[in-house]
Amino acid sequence: MQITLSTGKNFNVHKIENLLQTFKEQGIYLVASCGGKGICGKCRIKILEGKYRTESTGKLAPSDIQSGITLACRTFPDGDMVIDIPKESRLVVGDVIEISRSKDLFGLFQSMDGVISPLIKWITLDIPPPTIDNNVSDLERLKKALEEKGLHGMRFSLGFVSSLAHSLRDAGWKINLGYTHDPEAVCISRIENKKRFGIAADVGTTTVVVYLVDLFDGTLVDVGSTYNSQIRHGDDVITRIVYATEENGIAELRDAVVTDINNLIAPLVERHNIMAEDIESAVISGNTVMSHFFWSINPEYIREEPYTPSLNTFPVWKAWTAGLNINNLASIYTVPCVASYVGGDIVAGVLASKMHRRSEISLFLDIGTNGEIVLGNNEWLVTAACSAGPCFEGSGIRHGMRATEGAVESIKIDPQTFEPELGVIGSGKPVGICGSGMIDAITELFLSGIIDQKGRLLKGIKTDRIRDGFEGPEFLFYSDGRREIVLTEIDIENIIRAKAAIYAGISLMLKKVGIVLDDVERVYIAGGFGNYLNIERAIIIGMLPDIAREKFIFLGNTSIAGAYLCLLSDKMRKEAEEIALRMTNIELSVSRRFMDEYMSALFLPHTDIKLFPTVEKLLWKFPD
Amino acid sequence: MQITLSTGKNFNVHKIENLLQTFKEQGIYLVASCGGKGICGKCRIKILEGKYRTESTGKLAPSDIQSGITLACRTFPDGDMVIDIPKESRLVVGDVIEISRSKDLFGLFQSMDGVISPLIKWITLDIPPPTIDNNVSDLERLKKALEEKGLHGMRFSLGFVSSLAHSLRDAGWKINLGYTHDPEAVCISRIENKKRFGIAADVGTTTVVVYLVDLFDGTLVDVGSTYNSQIRHGDDVITRIVYATEENGIAELRDAVVTDINNLIAPLVERHNIMAEDIESAVISGNTVMSHFFWSINPEYIREEPYTPSLNTFPVWKAWTAGLNINNLASIYTVPCVASYVGGDIVAGVLASKMHRRSEISLFLDIGTNGEIVLGNNEWLVTAACSAGPCFEGSGIRHGMRATEGAVESIKIDPQTFEPELGVIGSGKPVGICGSGMIDAITELFLSGIIDQKGRLLKGIKTDRIRDGFEGPEFLFYSDGRREIVLTEIDIENIIRAKAAIYAGISLMLKKVGIVLDDVERVYIAGGFGNYLNIERAIIIGMLPDIAREKFIFLGNTSIAGAYLCLLSDKMRKEAEEIALRMTNIELSVSRRFMDEYMSALFLPHTDIKLFPTVEKLLWKFPD
Repeated sequence: MQITLSTGKNFNVHKIENLLQTFKEQGIYLVASCGGKGICGKCRIKILEGKYRTESTGKLAPSDIQSGITLACRTFPDGDMVIDIPKESRLVVGDVIEISRSKDLFGLFQSMDGVISPLIKWITLDIPPPTIDNNVSDLERLKKALEEKGLHGMRFSLGFVSSLAHSLRDAGWKINLGYTHDPEAVCISRIENKKRFGIAADVGTTTVVVYLVDLFDGTLVDVGSTYNSQIRHGDDVITRIVYATEENGIAELRDAVVTDINNLIAPLVERHNIMAEDIESAVISGNTVMSHFFWSINPEYIREEPYTPSLNTFPVWKAWTAGLNINNLASIYTVPCVASYVGGDIVAGVLASKMHRRSEISLFLDIGTNGEIVLGNNEWLVTAACSAGPCFEGSGIRHGMRATEGAVESIKIDPQTFEPELGVIGSGKPVGICGSGMIDAITELFLSGIIDQKGRLLKGIKTDRIRDGFEGPEFLFYSDGRREIVLTEIDIENIIRAKAAIYAGISLMLKKVGIVLDDVERVYIAGGFGNYLNIERAIIIGMLPDIAREKFIFLGNTSIAGAYLCLLSDKMRKEAEEIALRMTNIELSVSRRFMDEYMSALFLPHTDIKLFPTVEKLLWKFPD
Repeated sequence: MQITLSTGKNFNVHKIENLLQTFKEQGIYLVASCGGKGICGKCRIKILEGKYRTESTGKLAPSDIQSGITLACRTFPDGDMVIDIPKESRLVVGDVIEISRSKDLFGLFQSMDGVISPLIKWITLDIPPPTIDNNVSDLERLKKALEEKGLHGMRFSLGFVSSLAHSLRDAGWKINLGYTHDPEAVCISRIENKKRFGIAADVGTTTVVVYLVDLFDGTLVDVGSTYNSQIRHGDDVITRIVYATEENGIAELRDAVVTDINNLIAPLVERHNIMAEDIESAVISGNTVMSHFFWSINPEYIREEPYTPSLNTFPVWKAWTAGLNINNLASIYTVPCVASYVGGDIVAGVLASKMHRRSEISLFLDIGTNGEIVLGNNEWLVTAACSAGPCFEGSGIRHGMRATEGAVESIKIDPQTFEPELGVIGSGKPVGICGSGMIDAITELFLSGIIDQKGRLLKGIKTDRIRDGFEGPEFLFYSDGRREIVLTEIDIENIIRAKAAIYAGISLMLKKVGIVLDDVERVYIAGGFGNYLNIERAIIIGMLPDIAREKFIFLGNTSIAGAYLCLLSDKMRKEAEEIALRMTNIELSVSRRFMDEYMSALFLPHTDIKLFPTVEKLLWKFPD
C-alpha cells in the first residue's frame, strides 16, 4: 500500500498499523499527547483519498468526521491513501527554541561564596621518559609520578589506558592529568592546553536546555534549547513511563533525549571552535523520571504505589555510558532527586533560590509540565508534587498548545459585548491557546460572568460565542471560517483541576507544617511557564494564594541555574545533596486531606472566598 | 574478476590486492607466519588457470615456479583465475585442540594453603520492601541494607542500576549480592541460586586454553582449547605488533582472540547447562603482548627500544569492556606482567611451580612460541626473555609445522645407511616437521655425522639425501613423489639459533647472579612444547644445560595452572603480584655479554664442549 501526503511525499507501507505508528516509522511525528491511545484527540489528519478503517472517538466533531478528519492513532489503511496532515497536528521537535539567557549566573555563584572546583581536577606532572635502564611500563611510570605528588590509589579505565602510550608521548611526558574525585584518571593533555569546558543541561519533560560553560572562569559561553523529542511518545511522564515498558521503549526514550542534547552541543562546539573532548564534565538536572530516562534506567515502579524510583542519588557515571558527545570519560553529575515526583530540577531550583540558606520561610513553586512545591527555610524543607498535569503545555485541552508561534497568550473579554480580544505569539493567525492564554481565558470568562464559580458556561448570556459543541457547551474564541478555537466546559474543568491541584498542594503543605500564609515571606516562581505567569490573574482563578504581590519573585529556569552551580563547584554539589536529604516529601496522591483541599479548590477562586480577600473585593465590582 | 578454487568455491574480486589479502576477506586463511611479507614462503598456492602478476621470491624452487606455484602474498590477479590451495597452506584455526587436563589442580591449590576467595564476594541481604510510608528509592534501600552489614561506599555501575528494580523484585527482596573488592556491586541473585562459575584462560601466542571452574569448590568442570586465530596476522608477536599499528589492526587482533575464547566458552556453558551470567569472574594469563591485545591496548612501544609496555599491572576491568560472553559485570583479572617480553604467563608459571616459596634455587623454562627463563628462589627472582622465535612452532622452517596431524614428531637416522625412520602424528602421511621432530632431526644428523658442529651438511657423506636445493644444501627426510620434506642448511641454522638463544639466556643469567649450574636444584620445563621435549636430545644439541637428568621436571601448561590459582583466591592473586614485583628483568637484546654467550652457543652442542660432559662422552662413541 502506498501513502501519499498532500505535500507530495509518499512511501510504501508493508505492515498494517495505525497511521500514527506508520508515520512515526517514516520519521513523521504527530502531536500525540496521550501517546496514541485515542484520548487526547490531537493527532488529527484529513483523509483526502483511499479506503481506511477508523474507530469512532468522542474527540472529533461530527462535522470533522464528515469532512474526512480522523485520529491517526485510530486509523488503519485498507489500500492506497492520500492524506493531509494539518499544521497543528505536526509535532515540531528538534527545532532550536529561543531562550533568554539567565541573568548573571556567575554573580549568583559568587554571592554563594562559590569557589570554582568542577568535577574534574587537574595536576601537572613532569614524568621522566623511559630508558633502557628504567623501562617500566607507561602506567607504572605515571603512577609513580602521581604517588610522588601524594596521589595514591588512582583508578584507570580501559579507555584511558588504551590511549595512554600515545597521550604521554604526544605530550612529551610533561602533562596535565585530569582526574575525578574517586580518584579516577580522565584525560591527559599538553601543559599548554587550557581549554576546559563543561555542560549544564536541564532535561525537562517538555524542553531541553544546554549551557556551555568555561570551567576556568565560570563564563556562560553559550546556550541552546529545544523541545524534548520524547514528546513523540507522549506529553506527560506517565504516558512515557508506560511507553518505556514496551519493547525497546526505554532505549528509544533515552536516545531521543540524548540526541536532543547532542544536537544542542554540536553547534555550540562548532561555533566556539572547541573540540568535543574539551568538554570534560556535565551536570544533568531533571525530574526523577527524566533522570531515569537519561540513564535508561527502569522507571516503571515510579508509577505504581508505593511510587518507588530506582534511585534518587545517582552515581557519577561517564559520558560514554550516556552516549553524550563530549569527552568519553567526562564525569556526569546528576542533580539528586528526592522522590518519584520531586526531582533534581527542584533540588537545583531550591539551590539557585538560596531559600535553604535563609531563616525566613519561603515557598518555591515550579509550574512546568507538572507542579512541584517546596516550603521551608535553612532549618527545614518540605516538598510535594501536585499532579497538575501538562494542561498548561496544551495537553488535554482541545485547542491547547505550547507557547509557540500562533499560540493565544493573552485574552481580554469585553464585559458588555463578550467579544474577546486575543494576543497571539508571532505575526500569524492564532492556531491554539497556550498556558498563559488559558489563565487569561478563565479569568476573563469568570470576571465577565460567562462562567460560574464551578467553571460552567452560563446559559443566560447573550452571545453566540457560547454554543453546544459535540462534547458539550463551549466558548468560541476565534473563527476564521477555516479554523476555530474554543474552550469547552471539559477544557475549563481540566484547567480548574490543574489550578486546584497546585493550590491544594500549597494549602495542605502549610497546614502540615502548622503555619499560615502570612508566615510565608517569599514565593519563588520557577519553571518555563513561570516566566509568563500573570500573578494577578493566577490569584483570581485561585491557583496562587492571595498574598501580598511583592512577595512573588520570578526566578525563571532555576533547574538550569542550579545545574550551572553544580557544574562549577564541589561545594554546590554537596549543598544540592544536603538539600535533597533535608527535603521531606509528602505523597499527596494518597493523602485523604489533600483530596479535601483539592475538592475545595475546584471553585473559582475557592469554595472559601475568605481565603481570597482581594478577589472577593474585585467580584463585588461586577454583577454576580 | 572471478576467483575459482579447485574445491569449486568461487567469488568475485572488486579490488586488486594480493591474493593472501583477497582470501582473508573471503574468510579463507592461509599459513602466513611472516604476516604476508613474502618472507616465510608458507602461503603457497598453485595457479591452475588465469593471468596474474607475481613477484619473484627466493622462497620458491624453480620447479615450483614452473608448475605454477606462487606465494599468495606476492600474487595479484590480472583476470579470472582458477587456484588450488594445498592442504599445508591452509590455516586451520578455530578447531578445538585436544588437550590433556592438568593434573590435580585443586590439590596444588590446597598444597599452597589456598582458601577459596574469588574476585567476587557474596553477601545475603533481607531487604524490607518499600511501603507508602517508606518509599525511598531501590538503590537507597539497598545501600541502607549494606550499611547495616557494615559495607560502606559500595560503587554501582549504570549496568547494575539499570536492572536493579527488576532484580530486587524478582528475588522478592531477599537477595545474594555479588560484589568486588572495591567494593563494587556486580549482580543480584535469589538466595537459592548457588551456581557460580569462573573462567581461567591462557592466551598464548599460538594456542588459547580455557578452563571452566566451579567457584564454590574449585572443581575444574571442563576445558577447551583452540589455536589463537591472531595467527592469521602472523605467527610471532612482533609481526602482530606491526599489524596492530595498521588501521583497525588492534581491533581485529582483539576480536580474533576474544572470539576464540567466546567460542570455547559457548560449548562449555551449553554442555554443563549453565548460563553465561553465572560465570562471574575470569582470569587471563598471557604474555605481555597477548595481554595488551586482549584488552586492545596499544603495544607498539614494546617493539622499540627501550621496550616499554603500556602497562604491566592491569586494573581489574569488567567483562563487557573485553567483550567476553560471560556476566557483563564480571571482574576480569589479568595476571600481572613483568616487562615487554616477560608476561603474566611466566608469573602464573612461577606461581604454579612454587619456586618462589622454596629456598633451593630453581630454573624455570617456558619454551613455547618464545623462550622465557626465570631463575631464583624465595629470596630473589631474575628473569629474561631470549628471543628464540617461534621456529619450534614451525615458523621460519621450510617444512616446519605445529604438532598436529601429519607432523613428523620423532626421527631416527641409521648411522650406517643414513636412512631416516619417521614418527608421524596421526595415521596419515607426513606433511611437515614439528618442534620435537626438529630437535630429533638435529640430534640425529649431528650424531650420525651428517652435519658438523656448525650445522653444516657435510659433503663427503654417501647418501643421495644430501642434495643442493634452490636455497642451498638440504637433507631430504621424506619423499613420496608428490611431497618432499627437507631441512635446509638455513632451517638447521635457524633451529641452532633458537636453541642457542635459550642456552645463552640461561648461561648469562647464572653468571649475572654469580652462581653455577650445580647450584640449580631443579629445572622446571613449562609451555606447550615442553610436554613433548626430549630432555636427553635437547641437551645433546645444547639447548638445555648438561646437568643431572633427575633435576628436570615437566610442569605442562603452567600459565593456565597459575590462572586457575588466581581465579580461586585473593591470596594467590596477591602472591602473583608479589612475584611480578620481585622479578628482576634482564634485557638480553641490548646486552653485549648475551651476544657473546649466544655466539658461543651457535655450535652443537657448544663451542666449549666441556660444558657438556655427557655429550662429549657420547661423541667419543661415534667417529668424528
